[in-house]
Amino acid sequence: MLHVGVIGTGMIGQDHIRRMTQVLAGVEVTAVTDVDAAVSRRVGDLAGATVHATGEELIADPSVDAVVVCSWGPTHEQYVLAAIAAGKPVFCEKPLATTAEACLRIVEAEAAHGSRLVQVGYMRRYDSAYRELKKILDAGDIGLPLMMHCAHRNASVPSHYEKEMAITDTAVHEIDMVRWMFGTEIKAARVLVPRKNRNGGDLQDPLFLILETANEVLVDVEISVNIRYGYDIRGEIVGEHGTASLGSLSPVTVRTSLRAADPVPADWRERFLAAYDVEFQEWIDAISRTGTPAGPSSWDGYAAAVVSDAAVAALQSGSRVEVSLAEQPKLHGASA
Amino acid sequence: MLHVGVIGTGMIGQDHIRRMTQVLAGVEVTAVTDVDAAVSRRVGDLAGATVHATGEELIADPSVDAVVVCSWGPTHEQYVLAAIAAGKPVFCEKPLATTAEACLRIVEAEAAHGSRLVQVGYMRRYDSAYRELKKILDAGDIGLPLMMHCAHRNASVPSHYEKEMAITDTAVHEIDMVRWMFGTEIKAARVLVPRKNRNGGDLQDPLFLILETANEVLVDVEISVNIRYGYDIRGEIVGEHGTASLGSLSPVTVRTSLRAADPVPADWRERFLAAYDVEFQEWIDAISRTGTPAGPSSWDGYAAAVVSDAAVAALQSGSRVEVSLAEQPKLHGASA
Amino acid sequence: MLHVGVIGTGMIGQDHIRRMTQVLAGVEVTAVTDVDAAVSRRVGDLAGATVHATGEELIADPSVDAVVVCSWGPTHEQYVLAAIAAGKPVFCEKPLATTAEACLRIVEAEAAHGSRLVQVGYMRRYDSAYRELKKILDAGDIGLPLMMHCAHRNASVPSHYEKEMAITDTAVHEIDMVRWMFGTEIKAARVLVPRKNRNGGDLQDPLFLILETANEVLVDVEISVNIRYGYDIRGEIVGEHGTASLGSLSPVTVRTSLRAADPVPADWRERFLAAYDVEFQEWIDAISRTGTPAGPSSWDGYAAAVVSDAAVAALQSGSRVEVSLAEQPKLHGASA
Amino acid sequence: MLHVGVIGTGMIGQDHIRRMTQVLAGVEVTAVTDVDAAVSRRVGDLAGATVHATGEELIADPSVDAVVVCSWGPTHEQYVLAAIAAGKPVFCEKPLATTAEACLRIVEAEAAHGSRLVQVGYMRRYDSAYRELKKILDAGDIGLPLMMHCAHRNASVPSHYEKEMAITDTAVHEIDMVRWMFGTEIKAARVLVPRKNRNGGDLQDPLFLILETANEVLVDVEISVNIRYGYDIRGEIVGEHGTASLGSLSPVTVRTSLRAADPVPADWRERFLAAYDVEFQEWIDAISRTGTPAGPSSWDGYAAAVVSDAAVAALQSGSRVEVSLAEQPKLHGASA
Repeated sequence: MLHVGVIGTGMIGQDHIRRMTQVLAGVEVTAVTDVDAAVSRRVGDLAGATVHATGEELIADPSVDAVVVCSWGPTHEQYVLAAIAAGKPVFCEKPLATTAEACLRIVEAEAAHGSRLVQVGYMRRYDSAYRELKKILDAGDIGLPLMMHCAHRNASVPSHYEKEMAITDTAVHEIDMVRWMFGTEIKAARVLVPRKNRNGGDLQDPLFLILETANEVLVDVEISVNIRYGYDIRGEIVGEHGTASLGSLSPVTVRTSLRAADPVPADWRERFLAAYDVEFQEWIDAISRTGTPAGPSSWDGYAAAVVSDAAVAALQSGSRVEVSLAEQPKLHGASA
Repeated sequence: MLHVGVIGTGMIGQDHIRRMTQVLAGVEVTAVTDVDAAVSRRVGDLAGATVHATGEELIADPSVDAVVVCSWGPTHEQYVLAAIAAGKPVFCEKPLATTAEACLRIVEAEAAHGSRLVQVGYMRRYDSAYRELKKILDAGDIGLPLMMHCAHRNASVPSHYEKEMAITDTAVHEIDMVRWMFGTEIKAARVLVPRKNRNGGDLQDPLFLILETANEVLVDVEISVNIRYGYDIRGEIVGEHGTASLGSLSPVTVRTSLRAADPVPADWRERFLAAYDVEFQEWIDAISRTGTPAGPSSWDGYAAAVVSDAAVAALQSGSRVEVSLAEQPKLHGASA
Repeated sequence: MLHVGVIGTGMIGQDHIRRMTQVLAGVEVTAVTDVDAAVSRRVGDLAGATVHATGEELIADPSVDAVVVCSWGPTHEQYVLAAIAAGKPVFCEKPLATTAEACLRIVEAEAAHGSRLVQVGYMRRYDSAYRELKKILDAGDIGLPLMMHCAHRNASVPSHYEKEMAITDTAVHEIDMVRWMFGTEIKAARVLVPRKNRNGGDLQDPLFLILETANEVLVDVEISVNIRYGYDIRGEIVGEHGTASLGSLSPVTVRTSLRAADPVPADWRERFLAAYDVEFQEWIDAISRTGTPAGPSSWDGYAAAVVSDAAVAALQSGSRVEVSLAEQPKLHGASA
Repeated sequence: MLHVGVIGTGMIGQDHIRRMTQVLAGVEVTAVTDVDAAVSRRVGDLAGATVHATGEELIADPSVDAVVVCSWGPTHEQYVLAAIAAGKPVFCEKPLATTAEACLRIVEAEAAHGSRLVQVGYMRRYDSAYRELKKILDAGDIGLPLMMHCAHRNASVPSHYEKEMAITDTAVHEIDMVRWMFGTEIKAARVLVPRKNRNGGDLQDPLFLILETANEVLVDVEISVNIRYGYDIRGEIVGEHGTASLGSLSPVTVRTSLRAADPVPADWRERFLAAYDVEFQEWIDAISRTGTPAGPSSWDGYAAAVVSDAAVAALQSGSRVEVSLAEQPKLHGASA
């Protein structure tokens, strides 16, 4: 039984606590903390967990085997570094940290520690459809990959959503997925700006992100965040003698009113619920069995941040921007 | 250039005249007649065709190479027999005649004539999807056929539509299709009566028709004639190691309002328009080249009538009814 | 934490133990037993569970809160009755018992006990696609249900599989699903026998089962158990103004060699894995929270047995056979 | 009956002659010519048409009402100009001429003539799926268009196929389609170069073409010409609150060997056969009724050439290239 402490008990933290207490096997939430003490008190009592005043105190708690960080982004770095300092495995929701520099500090701290402790919450790698896609690609069924066409569509976004977030919050999932899918780094980014959707008010929406991998696979990502009709994640890999696409996954087809209709999910929760479950179960199992995570590493979190920065620069400049990564520590050599 | 005379210039006759004058190659409509002289006058003038007082007069017209019969069902027998007597090829809209006995008289008259002159208007055999299905079946891609599941759905039917018409007017298309698809006769019919659709008023709708072919393929046909959502023709052949189904044929998919929707045709015109064109073009080409039709024969028309009668008897009795066919003339030995 | 004892540690028992120890939350396997002591010893040691000599001993174990019965079918009755006698919740894999009479004895014992203790392992009710179908039906989106077309296809079956098992082992899943989907009993069954698949050797395969519900919904089920191409479960409900079908659920589409292909599952494990997980998690949660199961009841197990018997009689006689159920105890009035 | 003369009796010319003699209504091929006199003799005899020594002689033939130009591209300009000079309607296979300047000379000659005579063979506008897409877009079902994702895939190309032809021969169909679909000009082009497909030998394949329309719709086109798996034309328009895509059009689905497979066409003939028929029938009907074509105009041919040139320049330079069109004559104001 893995004893987990959760830092940050907002919406996402509560969802992960629910997951670990009501859905998954081999795990107990033994400690919680939040910047809002009233919230952490309420959540902790419900889960039967010790409530700590600070993340540092929680990390130090000997009843905590492993740490989950779901707090506000700007606090991720300090908690992840503290967990590394304490030698405890830490699962950090994306982003790993709010700047590439901060991510790199984590990479380096972990490398200095000498073994992997950090996993970053890129859950697409755990989605059964993406995994099936990767299996087909890796089996060589379509030949070498040449291109990938993606779409990341949200029905709507909150009013505080800003233009750059289409890259840093939304397409960052594709950025990580591409690195994982093709097993290689991204070397350059471009962003093109189509006609503006009036549903988005002043927001520049959609955007068209174009990535180049180190082995010249060209990836395009439509990012539409006010498209109203639902949450839709699309992906088609173009290989040398075939293509492989994410399927429809529609549980039912309804024929009424001159239409045969498949339901489209309303939001990401519906689409990726099972992926979150798998992500956490695999993390729990890996930590329980080996003490070492097997999922997206601190290097993956760092690389995603650097590519995001390049894409934001590309959006601002209108030009192709090259990605420049630090040297990869030996510890992380096998990741991505 | 084939010179065709059309008997019956109602809705269907006019549609075939439009087809032969505006769509197809190698044909001219040179003569028309109708029980309503005013209608035939108007239609004939428009088409630049001679207007005859009677079908017999039209058949005798030396400028008529071949005859198309689209008149009221009860008159089919007399015109088809007259065309046979005149030695002229005749395309007769379904039904060939209104009773099995009348159909048999035509079969015998044609056999006595000594060569095929009659083609009956079962257009499903010309539909590209059914043809593709038959090609896959005949290639052995799914092994020997064991079952076939069909659905024949109409959005609605006119108020004069009666219970037996679900067999004689609607499912008769499946009856002919099954004989052609499997290259064999139907030996028995059953009809089961599900819960009644309130959209159909007093009409018993839907019905569930079950056919057995001579080689034991079991075919079920859902007949729903007030299902509102559209016109939908479905078919799946179950073979020994696979199945083959009619596909979706959807030209577009529209994603709006939490749905990915494919359009469903509103009626049979939309679904089978191209099949009618192919049916007529192949008939015109066959008659022009060889004087002999290659499509559904008088025997096919007779067999469909006998199976329909058996199915109506099965509906009335609630029991399995065996089909009893007359001996097949040598002339028709290769048909179905 | 629910403490569960598992009777029967064969293939299915081991799979449920894996599920309860490695996948689900809120449950521990604390005791096991099997007719083969060596097997139960090995499985019990692995799971860290007490190993009992008999099912009765396991049921009496005070560390066992609830019982899961996965033993050989003929032993189900005795263990379920023993659990009822002990007042402990019991999850029994299908069939509830091997005869309708035995099932009825369980129904009556539970009724005498005065509250529900028994749940039967019909897992289709937990499949997300069937649940979505039921939601659409219950919402009235397609009007009242009139018919349902089903197919239950297995790539192959073991050599000991006999003709009646197509009903009692295979289509029994559809029998339960239909009662649950339409919230009503089945009143009659017919079985038609199509052309035989040579892949099945001497086995009569496929069969075509036709069920009538108390409210006149007509349900047909193709049962093909040697169809080679994969495991395929199909269902389409025909309503008054539309239809709702199980969707494709395909995670990917692969385009190679003149084909756009969606994968088909190889067997039921792949297709219903998630349904088993949901079934057990909901059972664990219900027992933990209320002590009372909410899933398929002993009455459901009994009714499935009676309908199966009727279908077997229909297969043997070639006739329509009516279903005759005992009077339903008040306790079970809300089930199905 | 429209009397047509065909200049160029190679593969495409013969196919159009077959179409006009064996498939379509209201047309006769009365004259042919070809640079290879033996070929035109053979084809002309077969069609019962006068064989002319030159295109000019054919155009002058009083028995020719309208001209179809299917000769070698470099000769298009002279024959189209000659037909305009003779005041005869002329259908010219794409390209209208081999340079933008030559196309513009034709536009100007037609404008000087004062009424439309020229139609260019962009047949996608006649494809039922594209037409359905345009209908949905024009109805406002998905809101204003913002983006369009296209793929143009060929199984293979002949050995003489060169890099620029991916634009000028292949994607030129998308270039015309986009202008027609959105009713606006294209203002800029970019071409990105993905990893090279080894199936294509030295050829740079695939390419990724990006077009901007005057109203800021961003269109991307994957051009893959050696993808082996078949001929596949894809298109999805992204609107403000939904998307509309070309559908599957699959006539059948075959389930065998753990796959549910839809056939993919082998080449463009199979995919666009019906579109060619519709294109010609509508041209014949328009010319017969009004003397004036209603399809793609000389301006459309010119604009496609200019956009193609810009795209080729973009491919060569690696930069975004703006499209610069001549002033549009009043005569062509309503086209595109």
